[in-house]
Amino acid sequence: MQKIALAIHGGAGTILKSVMTAELEENYRKGLQSALEAGWNILKTGGNALDAVEASVITLEDNPLFNAGKGSVFSHDGKNEMDASIMDGKTHNSGAVAAVKNIKNPIKLARLVMEQTEHLLLAGDGANEFSRQMKVELEPDEYFFTDLRYGQLLKAREENEIQLDHSQPEVQSLKSKNQSQSEESKIQNPKSKIGTVGAAACDFLGNLAAATSTGGMTNKKFGRIGDTPIIGAGTYADNQTCAVSCTGHGEFFMRTVAAYDVACRMKYKKSSLTESANEVVENLREIGGEGGLIAVDAKGNVALPFNSEGMYRAFITSDGEPVVEIYQNSPFYK
Amino acid sequence: MQKIALAIHGGAGTILKSVMTAELEENYRKGLQSALEAGWNILKTGGNALDAVEASVITLEDNPLFNAGKGSVFSHDGKNEMDASIMDGKTHNSGAVAAVKNIKNPIKLARLVMEQTEHLLLAGDGANEFSRQMKVELEPDEYFFTDLRYGQLLKAREENEIQLDHSQPEVQSLKSKNQSQSEESKIQNPKSKIGTVGAAACDFLGNLAAATSTGGMTNKKFGRIGDTPIIGAGTYADNQTCAVSCTGHGEFFMRTVAAYDVACRMKYKKSSLTESANEVVENLREIGGEGGLIAVDAKGNVALPFNSEGMYRAFITSDGEPVVEIYQNSPFYK
Repeated sequence: MQKIALAIHGGAGTILKSVMTAELEENYRKGLQSALEAGWNILKTGGNALDAVEASVITLEDNPLFNAGKGSVFSHDGKNEMDASIMDGKTHNSGAVAAVKNIKNPIKLARLVMEQTEHLLLAGDGANEFSRQMKVELEPDEYFFTDLRYGQLLKAREENEIQLDHSQPEVQSLKSKNQSQSEESKIQNPKSKIGTVGAAACDFLGNLAAATSTGGMTNKKFGRIGDTPIIGAGTYADNQTCAVSCTGHGEFFMRTVAAYDVACRMKYKKSSLTESANEVVENLREIGGEGGLIAVDAKGNVALPFNSEGMYRAFITSDGEPVVEIYQNSPFYK
Repeated sequence: MQKIALAIHGGAGTILKSVMTAELEENYRKGLQSALEAGWNILKTGGNALDAVEASVITLEDNPLFNAGKGSVFSHDGKNEMDASIMDGKTHNSGAVAAVKNIKNPIKLARLVMEQTEHLLLAGDGANEFSRQMKVELEPDEYFFTDLRYGQLLKAREENEIQLDHSQPEVQSLKSKNQSQSEESKIQNPKSKIGTVGAAACDFLGNLAAATSTGGMTNKKFGRIGDTPIIGAGTYADNQTCAVSCTGHGEFFMRTVAAYDVACRMKYKKSSLTESANEVVENLREIGGEGGLIAVDAKGNVALPFNSEGMYRAFITSDGEPVVEIYQNSPFYK
């Protein structure tokens, strides 16, 4: 009998247990659990993988703890510019949006690009114009405004640096808003802030799908686009191999075409899902590309390797037991 | 001794000999020849592959016959929005720009993204802001205005369709401006208009590089981005495998991650350059993806397969004999 599976992530980066409060950790775990349930409820009742990954990502986009949708970080000019992509492993149809504003759920818009246009990737004002024609749900700037994210921008602007997200300062500033700037700086490593959300699923028909969404990098300039809306880099799905969603330092995932590389190792080298996923993440580590990925194959196997200190992640396979993890010591990556 | 090689293309599509004048064909051939020489002069004097592909693409961008730089087609709102990408096969460093305006040579800007930023892809107004900081050469709207391209837009708007370029009507309207609209329409197949320019090279050190540039699709809307600025889809280079530049119906090249797929077949399946390139183009044909690609490996081999009726292309290998071709019956693809 066909086995079903779902894996999700809420971003990778330096997530030190030493600076995480029990309450905050609990909130992250609850957020992951609830996103996992949203997708699993669809899969276990015979729904399709595409609907499942979309549902999980929507739940993560609606949660202000994760850098996507509501919780998106601020670009240099104080805007929330979001990217998302989705791919159907059965047909290879794909849709993506880049640098969209005021869209409540960018992943829904990416799916509309896939289903309602002959294009794959729409960007900027043009993509927002398309969203109006599609009548997708918009939200005012205030919806995306959180003190935490705006504080990150002000801090990054001051230091003139780009942050990728999932920072200790984030944890730290939630933990203790009264700490002095200098104390906060002590635990800050701006290179290791990475934030994206994503899902990969296999349904009862053996169809695969993957979806990824992000609010980008704090203080990003010049219309930078990362790997999230790029099919092959941040997202890929193919029934013959696997469904993959990546999170990490986007430029490295783009240069190594990371998501498709997992599939290629399975397709051409005949490596297993776990071997392929681990090799890609190890290759990223060797070139300094911090992050991880989640992957599911058509037999219902999952792999969730990462080379950063933590990755918000969860999965559920045919035994129906949800697993939610944040820190290293995953059984999937040594 | 290390062999050097250079391949270039000026787009693929329906290029019917029956509607091409001898004079126009001669102009296309001269344009390809001169772009080939620009890159070859660098390679044969010991220059590097990256400089060679940039020089060839600049020459094609400056030629109004090709859909890139000066000859870019018009988007729906009468603008010229251009995309470009470049990749260094030695380091895997890459740079790309999408939806930039008024940039004389988008490929130069893509190289600056690669060399002067920590990012890979910059888009829209942000990319133009970066171009001002880099002081790259700008041109006013008039520079990009050609009667031919504007006529294509008016016609496409009227028919409410998107054109990809390299059309018979283009050839036709250059051939006979006095023909009636209805006569022109007879030979028009708007689905087969595809336009991009690109180059792939191997230098005396065995280093590979690839570059691609385009003016996009006539009458494109909603900020559509195609495969040209996407590393892995439109452009890829890796010294261990090959350098690739694609041209064709971009969405299909994105979905199949076409450029990286050529490299993966060499890397993981151990297929030859020619086998890999042909398989990728055949796979595209099977799913309805019209176009072709040029590819060069580190032994100085070249492959230029396409599944459309023609592809403007040229190559030169260690024998130093330039080959310029337009129509089908390439020795590289059956």
